Amino acid sequence: MNEAAFAILRKVTTATITTMLLRKGIRRCWMNGPKPLVPNGQRVVGAAFTLRFVPVREDLATMESWGNPISTRAAIEEMPEGAVAVADAMGVPSAGIFGDILCARMKKRNVGALITDGVVRDRAGVLKSALPVWSSGVAAPASVNGLTFVGWQQPIGCGGCAIFPGDVIVADDDGAVVIPQAMVEFVAHEGAEHERYESWVFGEVENGVRLPGLYPPNDDAKARYAAWRKSRS
Amino acid sequence: MNEAAFAILRKVTTATITTMLLRKGIRRCWMNGPKPLVPNGQRVVGAAFTLRFVPVREDLATMESWGNPISTRAAIEEMPEGAVAVADAMGVPSAGIFGDILCARMKKRNVGALITDGVVRDRAGVLKSALPVWSSGVAAPASVNGLTFVGWQQPIGCGGCAIFPGDVIVADDDGAVVIPQAMVEFVAHEGAEHERYESWVFGEVENGVRLPGLYPPNDDAKARYAAWRKSRS
Amino acid sequence: MNEAAFAILRKVTTATITTMLLRKGIRRCWMNGPKPLVPNGQRVVGAAFTLRFVPVREDLATMESWGNPISTRAAIEEMPEGAVAVADAMGVPSAGIFGDILCARMKKRNVGALITDGVVRDRAGVLKSALPVWSSGVAAPASVNGLTFVGWQQPIGCGGCAIFPGDVIVADDDGAVVIPQAMVEFVAHEGAEHERYESWVFGEVENGVRLPGLYPPNDDAKARYAAWRKSRS
Amino acid sequence: MNEAAFAILRKVTTATITTMLLRKGIRRCWMNGPKPLVPNGQRVVGAAFTLRFVPVREDLATMESWGNPISTRAAIEEMPEGAVAVADAMGVPSAGIFGDILCARMKKRNVGALITDGVVRDRAGVLKSALPVWSSGVAAPASVNGLTFVGWQQPIGCGGCAIFPGDVIVADDDGAVVIPQAMVEFVAHEGAEHERYESWVFGEVENGVRLPGLYPPNDDAKARYAAWRKSRS
Amino acid sequence: MNEAAFAILRKVTTATITTMLLRKGIRRCWMNGPKPLVPNGQRVVGAAFTLRFVPVREDLATMESWGNPISTRAAIEEMPEGAVAVADAMGVPSAGIFGDILCARMKKRNVGALITDGVVRDRAGVLKSALPVWSSGVAAPASVNGLTFVGWQQPIGCGGCAIFPGDVIVADDDGAVVIPQAMVEFVAHEGAEHERYESWVFGEVENGVRLPGLYPPNDDAKARYAAWRKSRS
Amino acid sequence: MNEAAFAILRKVTTATITTMLLRKGIRRCWMNGPKPLVPNGQRVVGAAFTLRFVPVREDLATMESWGNPISTRAAIEEMPEGAVAVADAMGVPSAGIFGDILCARMKKRNVGALITDGVVRDRAGVLKSALPVWSSGVAAPASVNGLTFVGWQQPIGCGGCAIFPGDVIVADDDGAVVIPQAMVEFVAHEGAEHERYESWVFGEVENGVRLPGLYPPNDDAKARYAAWRKSRS
Repeated sequence: MNEAAFAILRKVTTATITTMLLRKGIRRCWMNGPKPLVPNGQRVVGAAFTLRFVPVREDLATMESWGNPISTRAAIEEMPEGAVAVADAMGVPSAGIFGDILCARMKKRNVGALITDGVVRDRAGVLKSALPVWSSGVAAPASVNGLTFVGWQQPIGCGGCAIFPGDVIVADDDGAVVIPQAMVEFVAHEGAEHERYESWVFGEVENGVRLPGLYPPNDDAKARYAAWRKSRS
Repeated sequence: MNEAAFAILRKVTTATITTMLLRKGIRRCWMNGPKPLVPNGQRVVGAAFTLRFVPVREDLATMESWGNPISTRAAIEEMPEGAVAVADAMGVPSAGIFGDILCARMKKRNVGALITDGVVRDRAGVLKSALPVWSSGVAAPASVNGLTFVGWQQPIGCGGCAIFPGDVIVADDDGAVVIPQAMVEFVAHEGAEHERYESWVFGEVENGVRLPGLYPPNDDAKARYAAWRKSRS
Repeated sequence: MNEAAFAILRKVTTATITTMLLRKGIRRCWMNGPKPLVPNGQRVVGAAFTLRFVPVREDLATMESWGNPISTRAAIEEMPEGAVAVADAMGVPSAGIFGDILCARMKKRNVGALITDGVVRDRAGVLKSALPVWSSGVAAPASVNGLTFVGWQQPIGCGGCAIFPGDVIVADDDGAVVIPQAMVEFVAHEGAEHERYESWVFGEVENGVRLPGLYPPNDDAKARYAAWRKSRS
Repeated sequence: MNEAAFAILRKVTTATITTMLLRKGIRRCWMNGPKPLVPNGQRVVGAAFTLRFVPVREDLATMESWGNPISTRAAIEEMPEGAVAVADAMGVPSAGIFGDILCARMKKRNVGALITDGVVRDRAGVLKSALPVWSSGVAAPASVNGLTFVGWQQPIGCGGCAIFPGDVIVADDDGAVVIPQAMVEFVAHEGAEHERYESWVFGEVENGVRLPGLYPPNDDAKARYAAWRKSRS
Repeated sequence: MNEAAFAILRKVTTATITTMLLRKGIRRCWMNGPKPLVPNGQRVVGAAFTLRFVPVREDLATMESWGNPISTRAAIEEMPEGAVAVADAMGVPSAGIFGDILCARMKKRNVGALITDGVVRDRAGVLKSALPVWSSGVAAPASVNGLTFVGWQQPIGCGGCAIFPGDVIVADDDGAVVIPQAMVEFVAHEGAEHERYESWVFGEVENGVRLPGLYPPNDDAKARYAAWRKSRS
Repeated sequence: MNEAAFAILRKVTTATITTMLLRKGIRRCWMNGPKPLVPNGQRVVGAAFTLRFVPVREDLATMESWGNPISTRAAIEEMPEGAVAVADAMGVPSAGIFGDILCARMKKRNVGALITDGVVRDRAGVLKSALPVWSSGVAAPASVNGLTFVGWQQPIGCGGCAIFPGDVIVADDDGAVVIPQAMVEFVAHEGAEHERYESWVFGEVENGVRLPGLYPPNDDAKARYAAWRKSRS
């Protein structure tokens, strides 16, 4: 992975990233559902490590299944340092996919974050684990109460997006976005430039400039921005 | 607009307002969706300035469209001081209709608040703009990712309510209510009286009085309230 | 009611309780919807006192109906001390079943909590009443705006669960769970034991132990836990 | 029950009935969900006999429960001839509340119809029973797969309406409407008159008359209708 | 309007049309909801005449409002011959926007069809009117029971699509698609060609040819198709 | 596969099958969504061949992707004779996963049926292909308009059920059920016996016998059934 691009992305908002992706024709990059447990300004960037659940079936989704070779426990041990685990829980609101212990283990392994369109269990315990978590909320029941775990590092859907292993995930207080691997460089560099421009626009607005002609810029605004940009470099 | 009525409404809860409207036969006055970004006790009263979106279409909802004569930018410049902008975003959860820059411009123009059944983008930036916002949440993508802007000051639906330009909007920590223009005086004056009565009831409850006969009041409670009311005037 | 079991349950998370119920074959025990107004670590245990609403009908759901023998006011006066009121509001998001006054009266009567798959009204007032409330949110309109109250202490549905009067309710920051009366002893005692085991697991994870073989435990882990358990008793 | 009113209602469409109820201020009378299994022009009028389900709980909703004193079987034996059974199944799409055998027994007892916001099971068998059925569809699993039966002749919700035992139900190809008992006479007589007027309007439209001024009628149209009406009596 | 293009579109399936639009980058062209009342093979092509509803408000959506200058009645009299009326009913399932009389008037005026994401009322009467109708179903209550009519020939949303007056609508047994005006020629001509190719593919499949290499075609398949195409011209 | 069990299952309703599975503790076996395009009494039994889609992403879900090694076309060529293709389309209502050509190829390969919680495209063409299809409906756009195909013969979710390759699928006019492989024998044999009993019950009901004591049977009914059963063997 391109560490330089990651370093830039750590300073770019998800809002800007989605705008850069729209320029590339990508509208389906925003995960509906995942929100930070507590919006505290934390940001995360990393390669997606995918987890996949299907609906519960009573003969398969049992507490005994947690000891299987294909289990959430086994998956966690495969996660590389810095990865962002993305779990397809089909938006099920009543089965907490991970709780305090699994999150603590992920934290111990230096996994970057857990992101899911489902929910986690034991809010207090998960916060205590210090693993950054974006989910659709919290519910007490275990994953096996409503879900069957079937594997990892396969293509998944999460919050209405297709996520492939290795896609890049960025999450902040707004939620989480997926960047197709081939667009990471573009998004990072254009995104940083775009944020520079928007910071200038924000200043102009503070000075009382009207929006039409400013954002998007007409020729005059472009010239003024270019001058400002030059003066800062 | 009746500033006296507005002044009263600033002290009346949305709960009381909906009760007064029910007396007039209006049940569909509560917008499902809009909530304060942070429930901090802030209250807002103002005339509705409506904004209207329809679903996205790829040939129309483009970043270039932001420079059109019919655009959110142009609409903002038309908003009168003190107006409450109400945006019909059809409850779309994945396209942030406004972000930090547009909110900052609205604040600069002394717009009273932004209310939508959709979402805003860039939570941190919007909070920084200091514009009071009631929305269904937050999402990073821009409006054009999921919506096409088509105009302002037309009748709209928002959160299951019909909103006409000039209707009066009141919002507090519970959310937002629309008052048909012709009922504003009634709601303000009856609402204030109703809150006086409820503050007396609350005191009675604190003193251990049972609810039946008190709320709604029987003749005895009415008499006791009348006495209390008299003693306070 | 078994006060000893209640005392234990006050220290057991809803996450653990749902796991114990799954051992008994109960998957449908978690109420979708009810969340604490503010997640502040508060926990509540009590016998369910049920309240039942059906949809609004304009000739029945009137403000006058609040004075009827069958009314929310009358129901509150029947609630025993320590009971947990559970209201079936069919998940209706736009009719606040109870507000500041009714909550204050419940608090005065030492009712343990109010739990609903609907919403309450007047957030600030309800918080002021100090009654613990788990709801699907907040809306200003009164119950009669969208619901008709039809009785208490009947079987109800709440958040997708069947609740019978006398079932035991436990609620914490994750939300609320129902324990069938006949399973309360089992859940309390096995739950406490399970939490002891999990606290040991958490420590092991902090020490860097891998999850497979630990959680669920293999024979080695069982032995180590037994030793730890013994050393602590 | 007023047989004369029932006889009239058998010839009035549910469309007309809802319009008459709107005149009385009743908007919540239309059940969302119930549709005829096959739209064949069949119409049914009768007093509501209510059935109530709550969500499934695995210890209660068992096949053994079908032998309980409180069971769908027992309820059927209580249904009076000509009654319209209305079942509150909370719109659950995956548990067929009744199948061929129960429908056949209802038919044998001369029950008028079964109406539910849930589903029935064994479409072919139910059609064979010849009991008129309005439901939200069909699913193979039994009621106990997703529902717990809790009683009959209590107030219920069905398809978003409040239904009280004894309310009058009318169903046709459009679906099912509930008439509050006190409004049955009004609805029947005004409805019949309204349909007479609309049949005249339909003829006028066939003759090429424009709608404005005709429907609703201006003075001229009123006079022409009065003349036509007189000529037909 | 280009009658030649319309004549071609009358023979092209909506399936093919959506595929042609995808080539132009348009994914949001398919209306979710509208289905033919009875799937009978009928097809319709015409320019969109839009109708717009917002949610009901009790002081505005009254039977008296049907006589207003802005009313569904007035709108119908403005519809040009051959137009396809498209009504934004926000998917409301319980308010039939049009019934037998309004549909009969539209038919009399040679309106091509009525398409809505809402429902119509009086199924039997609407079928009798012979106006082709695509809707999300049927419900007895009138529009004013759940909707407020606010105007015509404005941009609308219908079934998740943006529809502008003059866009071209095509509907068949699958449902309804909108073609942006500027793409009508392309869609008609490419669509007809595409259907020719698919008819050849269908024959190949009947002859037992495997799909890979055939659909989409490899060079060999392209050559065979070209030969077949030539032999038929 | 056990052909004898399949032969029995061809005569057992999906209603009976779900009841047998409930005896084994399986409640999550019924797929919400899949319905026959036309309910014509057709029944199908076969081993599941699974297909998996994730949400659309504009850079991946293209018409060009139909030529990929991982494509719906390639999957079809892998389907064994008699298999029942089950496609996880996540219930997406606006992307027809298969149309006339793909269905025709499946029919040619003697695939038993196509079952999906999504939709198919080109209703007329699919009916013409004569492939039995159970879907959530019909929509014109192609799969790539809303879905990305990612593989076959993996575990999937379909209509809220977990489906593993090799599970047995039975579909009739009610819809489709999945039988875990290990339970096929039990379900077939107990199901056939259960239907025999129910046919006797149906006759009893026709003769006017009351349901309590008959269904479920008390000792007397059991004896009478045993006698009848004996007399028929």
